[in-house]
Order: sequence, then C-alpha cells, then structure tokens
Amino acid sequence: MVFHNYSPRFPGGSVPRFDHPTETVFTWAAPSLKFGLGALAEIGEDLHELGVTNALIITDPGVAASDVPDRIAHAVKAAGLDVQIYDGVAVEPTDASIEEAVAFARSGPWDGYVAVGGGSAMDTAKAVNLLTSHDGSLMDFIAPPIGGGRAPDQPLKPLIAVPTTAGTGSEATTICVVDLLDLHLKAGISHPRLRPVLAVVDPLTTLSVPPEVTAASGMDVLTHAAESYTALSFDARPAFPNAKARAAFCGANPISDVWCEKAMELVGTHLRKAVMNGGDLSARYGMAYASAITGMGFGNAGTHIPHANAYPIAGAVENYQAAGYPEMPMVPHGQAVASTAMAAFRFTYPADPGRHLRAAELIGGRPVDPDEGAEALPRVLRELMHDIGMPNGISAFGYGEDHLDTLVSGALKQSRQLSVVPRPLTAEAAGRIFRESLRNW
Amino acid sequence: MVFHNYSPRFPGGSVPRFDHPTETVFTWAAPSLKFGLGALAEIGEDLHELGVTNALIITDPGVAASDVPDRIAHAVKAAGLDVQIYDGVAVEPTDASIEEAVAFARSGPWDGYVAVGGGSAMDTAKAVNLLTSHDGSLMDFIAPPIGGGRAPDQPLKPLIAVPTTAGTGSEATTICVVDLLDLHLKAGISHPRLRPVLAVVDPLTTLSVPPEVTAASGMDVLTHAAESYTALSFDARPAFPNAKARAAFCGANPISDVWCEKAMELVGTHLRKAVMNGGDLSARYGMAYASAITGMGFGNAGTHIPHANAYPIAGAVENYQAAGYPEMPMVPHGQAVASTAMAAFRFTYPADPGRHLRAAELIGGRPVDPDEGAEALPRVLRELMHDIGMPNGISAFGYGEDHLDTLVSGALKQSRQLSVVPRPLTAEAAGRIFRESLRNW
Repeated sequence: MVFHNYSPRFPGGSVPRFDHPTETVFTWAAPSLKFGLGALAEIGEDLHELGVTNALIITDPGVAASDVPDRIAHAVKAAGLDVQIYDGVAVEPTDASIEEAVAFARSGPWDGYVAVGGGSAMDTAKAVNLLTSHDGSLMDFIAPPIGGGRAPDQPLKPLIAVPTTAGTGSEATTICVVDLLDLHLKAGISHPRLRPVLAVVDPLTTLSVPPEVTAASGMDVLTHAAESYTALSFDARPAFPNAKARAAFCGANPISDVWCEKAMELVGTHLRKAVMNGGDLSARYGMAYASAITGMGFGNAGTHIPHANAYPIAGAVENYQAAGYPEMPMVPHGQAVASTAMAAFRFTYPADPGRHLRAAELIGGRPVDPDEGAEALPRVLRELMHDIGMPNGISAFGYGEDHLDTLVSGALKQSRQLSVVPRPLTAEAAGRIFRESLRNW
Repeated sequence: MVFHNYSPRFPGGSVPRFDHPTETVFTWAAPSLKFGLGALAEIGEDLHELGVTNALIITDPGVAASDVPDRIAHAVKAAGLDVQIYDGVAVEPTDASIEEAVAFARSGPWDGYVAVGGGSAMDTAKAVNLLTSHDGSLMDFIAPPIGGGRAPDQPLKPLIAVPTTAGTGSEATTICVVDLLDLHLKAGISHPRLRPVLAVVDPLTTLSVPPEVTAASGMDVLTHAAESYTALSFDARPAFPNAKARAAFCGANPISDVWCEKAMELVGTHLRKAVMNGGDLSARYGMAYASAITGMGFGNAGTHIPHANAYPIAGAVENYQAAGYPEMPMVPHGQAVASTAMAAFRFTYPADPGRHLRAAELIGGRPVDPDEGAEALPRVLRELMHDIGMPNGISAFGYGEDHLDTLVSGALKQSRQLSVVPRPLTAEAAGRIFRESLRNW
C-alpha cells in the first residue's frame, strides 16, 4: 500500500497528512429493502421465496398489543406457511431475556424469523438466529475479554426485519447488544452473518403511533442524520492496519453524506405534520422513508456526542415518566439524543462550519445567514423541538447541576461514538454541553 | 390489500387512479460495497473473511492485459489463499464461452470467485458460480420458454465483483445475460442467489483507462442515471398481482431518484476532466464513485429509450471501429446509448418537464431557463458529448436513412426497457428519434 498519503475527501479534498497514513477506504452494506403501502401483506411470499416453511415472529409485548404482528402472521399463513408469534422480548434485552427467547426457539421447528419492533426485537432475533444455527451459549460469541469471541461459521436462517420504531437502523446492522445483568454492563456480538436479509417498511403501520412517540422517534432520525453528517470523515482517521481492523462505523463518507442530507430535508418537511396530524399519510410516508434510510443509507457512518450523551441520560434516570410511553421511569431514546443536540452541535461547529450551516438549511427548509454561525443549527433544532412538544432539556428528566459529573463520566465511556467526534471532547467540554442542555429554551 | 388507491408519489403525489389499482411498493437491493484508493489490496482478506481458501479470478483477455487481475492475485496470495486466473471470458458471453468457463471451473478446487471487468466477466462469473454449486446445464436455468426455468436451490459460493468499466451496474444485479448462438437470441437467468456478495471499487485502477473509453463509459453512467430519473414512476404502473410477479426494475422510485441526481451532478463535474487529464485523481475518484452508485444506488429503477435503442445500434453494426477500443467492428455500449439520448429526452420531456429541466441543471452545473423547455437537456448533453469527443450521432457508426426501419424494429423488441418508458413509444416516434440522431450537431 503506497497510496496512503492521498486523502481526497470527496467532493472537496482534505489536507494530505504526511506524518501518519490516513484511511482511504470506506465500506457500506445494507439488507434488501421492500418499502411501500401494504408491503406487510407480502411477508409470507417473501419468506416462501427465502425457502422458509415455518416462521417465528419475534416481538415485544408493546408491539404485540398493536395489530402489526397479527397482521404479519395472517399474511404468512395466507402464503401457506406455518407461523407462531413469540412476544417475550424485553425492552432492553438482557442475557436472561435472550436466553429465554433462545430456549423457546430451540424447542421448535422454525426455519426462519421475522423481527417486529425496534432495536430490542431485532437484537433478540439476531441472537436467536445465531443460537439456533449454532450450538453453544450467548457468552461464547460475545466479544472478548468479556466473552469467548467465537465467530459464527454456519449460515444463519433467513431473518426479515420489520422496523416499527424510527431511527435505530438496527434492521441494517450486524450488531446485537445485550445487557449483561450480573456484570452490570452492555456487551455486543457483531458479525456480517447477523444482518437481516430483508427489511420491510410499511408506512401504514405508523398511522396509529401517538404524537409523543412520533416526535421522539423523528428526533432520533434527525439527530442520527445530523451526527453522521458532521462526524469525523472516514479519510481523516488514522489508517487501519488491515481490513479486519477497520471500524464498522467509518465516519462521514460519500454514501452517508447523500442520505444524511436527504433525511434532514425529509424530517424538516414532514415531522411537524406527522406529529400534529397522525393521519397525514404523506407526512407519515416521508417520515417512514426518512427512518428507512437511517439503516440502508447512513448506518455506516456512526454517531457522536448526542448519542454518547444519551447513554448516561437514559441510564441514570430515576422518576421521569414520558407522556405517551408505558408507565415506567424511562427516557425514550429519541428524547435522550435530542436533549443535548443543540449544545453538542454548537460545540462541533468549528470542525466544519459549512456542514453545520447546510444542516440548518436542510432542516429549516430555507437559506441561513452565514453570520449566524454556530447558532444556526441549534436555533433550527430548538424551533422544531419546541413546535413538536419535546421536553425542554435534561432538567425535564430530573437532572440538575449535581448530576453533571455522573453524566459526563458516562458519556466519556462511549468509545464507539467518541472515535468519530469531529472535535476532541474533553471532560470540560462535555460538562459545558450538559450544563447548556439543562434547559434548551 | 385495500390500499391500492393510495399512490402518493414521493415527495409530491401522483393522481390517484380509481379505474385500476396502481403499484404501491418498490424494492431495492445491492451487494456490500468497499470503495477507496487501494481497496484492491484487501481482496485476499475479504475472501478469507468469507471463508474462501482457494479463489478463481474470472476475467477477459483485455482486462487481463492490464495489471489489475495480477494485482488481485498477488493480494489473495499475500493473505495466504490459493488463487488462479481464468481469462477466457468472451466480450459478449455466449452459451459456448460460458460452458467453456464452467467446464474449467468444475475441474478445479475453487471455493470462491472474483469477477474482474465489465458485464461480460461478471455475467460469466455468475453462471460459473451457479453451475459449480448445482449440477445440470446452463439451459436448465434459463427462463422459459427457451430454457427449463429451474431455480437455484443451493447456496452459491462467495463471489466478489471488481467492476473496471463504468456504468453497467452488473456487480449489483441478479442477472446473467447469455447470447445463445444456435438460437440467435439473448436470454437470461435471474435469481437473488446470483448477486455478488461484495463489490470492490478502487479508483486507482481507472487512472490508465484511455480517454475514449473514459468518455464512453462516463456517458453510459450518465444516460443510465438520466433514464432512471425520467423513467415511469413505480407507483404509476399497474399493481403487480403478487410479490413474485413484481418486476425487478421498479421504475423511478425514492431511492433511485436520490442517486440519479447525485450521479448526474458527479458526471457533470468530473467527466470532462477525467477525459482530458486521465491523471486527475480527483476527477477519476468522482467518476469511479458515480459508476459505483449506478449499481448500489439506482440499479433498481431501469432504463428506457436510449438503452432500448442501443441494442439494435450495437447489433447491426458492420464496419465501425471505435478509437481507443480493440480492433473489431463494434459500437461501445456507452457510445450506443449516448447516440440517441438527445432525441430520446426531447421526446420524453412532456412526461415530466420538471425532471428533465432538473437533469439539465445537474449535468450542466448551472440553472436552466425554464423557457428552454424540451431543448435544455439535449443542449447540455450535446455540449458535454462534443467536448469529450463522442461520435456525432448514429451516422458515425455507418447508419443512414436506409437502416431506420431495422433500428426501430430492434428497439421496439426491448420489452424490459419499454415497460418503464415515461411516454408510450410508437414506431413513428422511435423512427423520429433515430432520424434526429443521425447527427447530433
């Protein structure tokens, strides 16, 4: 490899670095996608085409309470296949909840899976698929030093993903994240064989989503897009020593850039309408599409500060009860990521002013005065969040000055996100971001 | 399915049709992509990761004369795998040439393939992969009524595609096209199992491509994008009765639209520079990227009139010898598709004036006066083709008034392309397009 000094950030060109080689390659992968009104009705045919004769639908109790899993089961039966629904997925999958699902799936004759829901259902289905195609235990496959680091060496069964919550992109990833109860930490299994073969997105399933959930999941898509767009560029990172060592999340790259821009424009156009009139099919269609491209379009870039901050914000919550969500103390992911986004982008602005101004224009739907500088993107986010009734900063979740150290220390542990921050995040800077985010207006 | 009367063409909305149901679903799929300077050097690692121990590189003599297959073989050996090069691919694969390649591959121990070249190498590799994973003959798998229509029921071996010519998108498709010598016709095999698992695109391999080949392959990308962008929309077509019946080429759709716009902008920005200074790495990078997104980005839409016209233009040629190409009577694909594009887009303009004007702006890199109407896109194409030295219309290939009937009749046989023309193509209209294309300036 003699080419490492060329680093033509596309479409511009970054400054060549001669002190150490920078990365020159990015990767991208996604499951096949079927998108459209009524797409759910074809899942039986899709399974049949994949050679499945007996399918297990894997979902959580909340999603099962909607009619979506039942409608899928109906479609699967109509195609002449056998089908059963497993609705025991835990909302944050643990080793215990996954082992329960695996024990159930190992007891039956299923030769294909349909995951219906958000990240929890998809991650559980990935683990079930792995452990019904291989012997051994979950811990065998978890990355070392925690687990055995065993790599799947057998083909997995066909897994179709039906995302019903926006923005996680889990339907497109190779990752399964598990909460290890005894060890009090989260760990993951990642391997290309875990990726679903097909994502099916039907905007009609979103018509009955409550306004608060529509708002939060829409903000998840939006912050995911804005973070991926402003993340450290793939070719500004030090070169990886070989293909295997290359991070799955590349940083900003030509493919993710295109889709981030599209997603920001779509959310800017459609989110207010989808929240305020859930029956606006055009707005629901636009938001479902924006959410679908989170997975297939910019899932390869990675997120940075707002997502890193969301982990401790969600993890340390005590009494917050989100309207429109199940009765339990919980900060919905979309609320958590949105709550520090304004301050985070104010901080990252100097790393690439042009991109931050462009993001503000796409979300706001009109030109931005460049003199507005670092305030443009936070201002556009504030206007949107205010209009759609998002909580006003992390104080809404019960956090105050006393919690800032805990939040900072939790955010600084998120090494995956920190690897693509566009501007190095010191503890002091992180503290300032959390403090500015106590109230956003 | 009660939703067929909704047809919200995204992002606008087409007129609902109540006389017959229209389609509501589009599909999209692509292989994983690895893109970047030096990406070739990792193919051995990529094969290893896919479980391959002994790889066969499949290419044609023209590509083999470059150093690309040898460099790949070197990288594969460096990763500790065995490797051999087969360079017997015919430039338009026939049943005979494919059977020869299959006989060779069945005689050896290879457990994975690398296709290097254009559509010919990739299609041959797909057939080799199919027939070394299944018993039987090519004809068993060709679609009825010509062949037996047998569907592959076994997993195929890992196939990595390394496209070295721009714009075919064959690295992303499930299709293998074969010239059946005795029957004097082309037939195809199409199945999702035939799709390569990974496309590897390294812009450095294009630095030595001659100017004429750069120009023609760039025009192939451009017309492919402009056709996909102006193709009949997926939701303006009659509804398919079931998932299996849905055409693999959907028509224009939200995913292809995004990438068509990007590809037109990239070609407008970079093609002149890539032709006039082959060593301009930034221009080569932009064109390699534009070409890569032909496969992963808008390969699901389909092409229309210029591609339909290209079949008889290439098929009936007698004496034309293209500069920069091997010495044989042949119209390079990119020259064939570009030659009638101006007249074709003049004809399709009324089907969607806004998209034609937008295409002209993206290719031309500046705003277009809407009063220019149907002439805007042809004018921008003429300026580009003139600047990069493309042949001046089909008379340059030796065609005159006497050949028009033959050309029209050949074009009207291209049912795949005609299924997504945005404006019904009569024989009279096709004749006018060919006549206008005798000379383009």
